[in-house]
Amino acid sequence: MSQWLRGLLPPLEWLRGYNRNALASDTLAAVIVTIMLIPQSLAYALLAGLPAEMGLYASILPLLAYAIFGSSRTLSVGPVAVVSLMTATAVGKVAATGSLGYASAAIAMALLSGAMLIGMGLLRFGYLANLLSHPVVSGFITASGIIIALSQLRHILGIQAHGETLPTLISTLWMQLWAFNGVTLITGTAALIFLFWVRSGLAPLLCRVGFSASAAGMLAKAGPVLVIIVTTLASIALDYQTLGVALVGTVPRGLPAFSIPTMDFALWSELAVSALLISVIGFVESVSVGKTLAAKRRQRVDANQELVALGAANVASAVSGGFPVTGGFSRSVVNFDAGAQTQLASVLTAGGIAGAALLLTPVLYFLPKATLAATIIVAVTSLIDFSLIKLAWRYSRTDFIAVMVTILSTLFFGVELGVLCGILASISLHLHKTSQPHIAIVGEVPGTEHFRNINRHDVITYPSIVSLRIDESLYFANAGYMESAIYAVIAERDERLKHIILQCTAVNAIDLSALEALEAVTQRLKEQGIMLHLSEVKGPVMDALERTDFLEHLSGQVFLSQHQACEALKPVTES
Amino acid sequence: MSQWLRGLLPPLEWLRGYNRNALASDTLAAVIVTIMLIPQSLAYALLAGLPAEMGLYASILPLLAYAIFGSSRTLSVGPVAVVSLMTATAVGKVAATGSLGYASAAIAMALLSGAMLIGMGLLRFGYLANLLSHPVVSGFITASGIIIALSQLRHILGIQAHGETLPTLISTLWMQLWAFNGVTLITGTAALIFLFWVRSGLAPLLCRVGFSASAAGMLAKAGPVLVIIVTTLASIALDYQTLGVALVGTVPRGLPAFSIPTMDFALWSELAVSALLISVIGFVESVSVGKTLAAKRRQRVDANQELVALGAANVASAVSGGFPVTGGFSRSVVNFDAGAQTQLASVLTAGGIAGAALLLTPVLYFLPKATLAATIIVAVTSLIDFSLIKLAWRYSRTDFIAVMVTILSTLFFGVELGVLCGILASISLHLHKTSQPHIAIVGEVPGTEHFRNINRHDVITYPSIVSLRIDESLYFANAGYMESAIYAVIAERDERLKHIILQCTAVNAIDLSALEALEAVTQRLKEQGIMLHLSEVKGPVMDALERTDFLEHLSGQVFLSQHQACEALKPVTES
Repeated sequence: MSQWLRGLLPPLEWLRGYNRNALASDTLAAVIVTIMLIPQSLAYALLAGLPAEMGLYASILPLLAYAIFGSSRTLSVGPVAVVSLMTATAVGKVAATGSLGYASAAIAMALLSGAMLIGMGLLRFGYLANLLSHPVVSGFITASGIIIALSQLRHILGIQAHGETLPTLISTLWMQLWAFNGVTLITGTAALIFLFWVRSGLAPLLCRVGFSASAAGMLAKAGPVLVIIVTTLASIALDYQTLGVALVGTVPRGLPAFSIPTMDFALWSELAVSALLISVIGFVESVSVGKTLAAKRRQRVDANQELVALGAANVASAVSGGFPVTGGFSRSVVNFDAGAQTQLASVLTAGGIAGAALLLTPVLYFLPKATLAATIIVAVTSLIDFSLIKLAWRYSRTDFIAVMVTILSTLFFGVELGVLCGILASISLHLHKTSQPHIAIVGEVPGTEHFRNINRHDVITYPSIVSLRIDESLYFANAGYMESAIYAVIAERDERLKHIILQCTAVNAIDLSALEALEAVTQRLKEQGIMLHLSEVKGPVMDALERTDFLEHLSGQVFLSQHQACEALKPVTES
Repeated sequence: MSQWLRGLLPPLEWLRGYNRNALASDTLAAVIVTIMLIPQSLAYALLAGLPAEMGLYASILPLLAYAIFGSSRTLSVGPVAVVSLMTATAVGKVAATGSLGYASAAIAMALLSGAMLIGMGLLRFGYLANLLSHPVVSGFITASGIIIALSQLRHILGIQAHGETLPTLISTLWMQLWAFNGVTLITGTAALIFLFWVRSGLAPLLCRVGFSASAAGMLAKAGPVLVIIVTTLASIALDYQTLGVALVGTVPRGLPAFSIPTMDFALWSELAVSALLISVIGFVESVSVGKTLAAKRRQRVDANQELVALGAANVASAVSGGFPVTGGFSRSVVNFDAGAQTQLASVLTAGGIAGAALLLTPVLYFLPKATLAATIIVAVTSLIDFSLIKLAWRYSRTDFIAVMVTILSTLFFGVELGVLCGILASISLHLHKTSQPHIAIVGEVPGTEHFRNINRHDVITYPSIVSLRIDESLYFANAGYMESAIYAVIAERDERLKHIILQCTAVNAIDLSALEALEAVTQRLKEQGIMLHLSEVKGPVMDALERTDFLEHLSGQVFLSQHQACEALKPVTES
C-alpha cells in the first residue's frame, strides 16, 4: 500500500493494529460523546436559527466523512458555537430567519465551505492558518462567546430580541426586558444554575460519595441531558405550551434524506465571502484542537489533510440536510478524555445520533428552548477568556492592540468584520513594527572581535568609520526607513567620515525594493565621498546579490566579518 | 518663528534667503514648464474623459496650494497620466462619460481624495506609502502606461472604442479598426512620429547647429507646443471639422469659477474606495519624485507634510472645477532641470496657465484630439519599463511574482484591482517567505567560539545537544513552522538527546503567538525529558520575556552566548 494512499485515507493506518481493547475504549467514548452531543446539536441548530433536527443531521454523516479522511484520531466534528453564529450572521443576510430559503442557504453554505476547504487542501494552503495570530483567534473567540451568550438571553427571558452586535443585542434586550415570560425565565434560570453547578460542583460531590475522579468527570458530562429530561418532563406535566413557553416543537422523525443541494450560483456568490471566513475560522479552530490532542499522544496532524477532511465533512453535512460543521473543542476533549483511540469512536457516535433521530424526536416537541439556550450559555462561557488581554498588555503593545481591535470590532461590527479587522490589524501591526527596525551604531569591544551598541557599551570607534547594525531583514516596508536612517547618521557626522559599514548579521533577506534603496544610498554617499561597505552578509543574501550588478556599483567592499572590515578600513595613524 | 510653523508652511523657510538670482532661475523654469504643461493639461483631461478646460483648471490653484504647503522645492503638481486614468475608471462607474454628472463626480473625487490625504497627513500615516513595494509600483506604472497608450489609439485612428483592460481595449479597437478616419490617422501618426523624433533626435540636432546642450534640451521640450500649433493651423486651413476629424471644440474662456462641490454623501461613499486608491498611488508617485529630486540638492522631503500638501492641492483643484492631481514625474524633472530653486516657479507657472486659460481657449476649438492623444502616447511610453521584470527574475522569485501579479492583474482587471492585487500579493509573499524561516542546526567551529551550519562546516557536536539557529524574528506567521521544525529535529535524534538550545542571534522579536508556541514546545520537550535553552537573546526580546512568566516555565536556561551554553551543557565525559 503506498504511502500516498495511507496519507489520504488515515483509517488504512489505524485499522491495521485495531483490537478488542481499542474497540472497548472507542465504544465507551462514543456513548459519552453521544450523550453530550444530542443537546449540543439541538442547541447549535437553534443558535444558527435553524430547525432543531438540522443539528442532529449535521452530527451524523459529517462524523463518518471525517473518520475516513481526518488525520486526527480523536477530533470530533459537528456543529460548534462560533461557526453556528457565523452561519446565522451570513445566512441572515440573504434570507429571513425561519423561512425555507434560510435553511437551504445554510445547506448551501455547508456545501460551499466544504468545496472551499477541499480546494484549499488540494492546493496545500494549510499554512494560511498561520495568518491568524494567537491574539486574533483568542480575541475573536472571546468576543463571539459574549455575543452568543447575550443572544441566548432572549430564550431564557422568553422574549423576541435580535441582533448580532453588542449594541443591537443590548438595546433590543433592554427594550423588551419587561415582556419576559415568567415560566420561561424560571425554567431557564434553573437550568442555567444547575448546569453551572454541574460544571464546578458535581464532579467533586460524586468523588466524595465514592466515584473515581474520571468516572465522576464522565458522569458530570451527562448534566445537560439530565436538564433536558427534567425540563421536558416539567413542560409536559405543567403544560408549558399553554403558558406561552417557547418549545422546540415538531421535529421530523427519522434519518435525513440525501439530496444534492440546488445549484444556485447567484446565492453562492452572495455567500462566498462568508463561506471563506467560516472555512478559515472553522479550520483554525479545528486544527488547533487537533494538534493539541495529537501532541499529547505524540501523534501528528497534517494541516492539508485536515482541510480535505473538514471539507468532506461539510459536503457530507450539506448532502444530508445539515449546516456548516468543524472540529469542536469541548466535544473533542471529552472524546479524548473518555479514552477514544481512533475515529471508530466517531463512527459509533454517528450511529448513536442516528438512533436519537429515529427514536427521540417525538419527545423533543416539549423541550423548552430556554433549556437549550442555557446549555449554550454554559458552554460558551468557557470560551470567554480575558486573561490574554492582560498578558498582551504586559508583553507587547502590538499584540495588545491586535487583541483589542479583534474583540472590539467583533463586538461592535459583528463576527465577519471582526475577524477581518483582526487579521488586517495583526498583519498591519507586524508590517509597521518591521518597517521601523532597530538600527544600532556599533563599535568594537576592546580586546575582542565583538561589536556592540555604542550607547550601551564602551567601545572603540573612529571618526572616519560608522558601523551600523540593522536588526531586521530589509524589505519594501523598511527600505525607505533604512535609507533615511543612514542619511540621518551622516548628517550628524563631519567631513572626516569616509566609510559606512552595514553589519548584516540580522539581515535574513534583502528584497528588490531594499536593493534599490541600497543602490540609491551607495550613489548618494559616493557623491559625498563616502564609501558603503557590507559585512557578515549571510550566504543566501550574498547569492542573490551576486545575481545582480549591485556589487559592481557598490563603492566599498563586502567583508566576512565586522572586525575584518574595521581592521581594513581604520586609519593607519589611529591604529 | 516656531519650528512647527516653519514645518507646516515651508515658504517661511525658503522665502528668507530669496534673492534676484533665485527669481531669475524660477522665472525661466516657469516659462518652460508652462509651455510643456498646456498641452499636457489638455491631454490628461481628455484621458480622464473630461472637458479640456478642466485640465487647465487643475493646473492653476493646485500649484498655489502645493507651493504653500509642499516640502519639496521643485515638485510640480497637476494632472498626471496614471491618476487621470484611475479617475476615468472610478468616475466611469458612477456616471456616463460626457454627462454633467461625470464632471461633477470627478470634482467630488478630487475633494474626497484631498480630504483623505490631509487626514492621513495629520494622522502621520506617511509611512503607509512603504506598503507599496518597488515591484508593485513599477509594475503598476508599466501596465498603466500600456493601457493608457492603447486607450489613446482610438483618437489616432478616429474611431469610437472603449475599455479599461487589455482584452476589452484590443477587442474594441480590432472590431472598429476599419472605421478609421483617414485625415485623423495621418494627422495623429505624423504628430506621433514628430514627437518621438523630438524626444530622441531634436536635441542632438540643435547641439550640432550651435545650441548648448542645456538650451537644446529646453527647446526640445517645446516640441508638443509646436505640434499643437502646426496641427491647429492645418485643422483651420484644411477645415478638418468637415472632414470628420474629432476636435477639442468649444472651451469656455476665462478663469475657473470658485464653487464648493455639492455635498453628495451617496456619491462620496460610492467613490470612497477609488478615492483612497487614487490618493495612495498619487502620493507614492509624488513622494518618490520629490525624494529623488530633493536628494540631488541635499534637501529633505517630509512624507507627512507631503500628504497635507497634496491634499490641499486636490481640495484646491476641486473648488476650482479641476480633477485629481499629484506631483508628476516628467514635469517635475523639467522644472528641476530648468533650474527652479523654489516653489515660486510653480506660482509663476500657475500664472502662465491662467494666462493661457484667458487668452488661448478660442484657438483650442480647432485642435485635433489626435494631437493630444499623440502627446499622451509619447509621454507614457517613457513609463513602460520591462527591465524590472528581468531584474526581478534573476534576483528573487518573490519579487518576480509580485511584479508579474501587478502587471497582469492591472492589464486584465483594470487599474483599481491591479494595484490592490499587487499590494496583497507583495504582502502575502513577504508573509509567506518569513513564515518558513531558515533554521540551521549549528555546531562549534573547532578552536573558536563561532557556531556554523553543520551541513556547511566541520563542527563539533554532541549527541546530547542540538543547537538550532533560527534566522528570522518569531511571530504568528512562523510560530507553527518553528514548532514543527523543532519536533522534526527531535524525531531524528535518539534518546541521548537532552538539550535543545535556540540561538537567537537573528530573532529581533518574539510576539505573543510565538511565545505561546515556545511554551508549548517547552512543555512537550519536558514530557520527553529534554530541556529547552535560549542563547544570545537580544536585549529588547529579553525585556519582553521578563514581563511574562515564560522564563519561570522554561525548563532550561538563558545563556549569553551559544559558546557558554555548550560549555555548560556538554557532557563531562565527552569534553
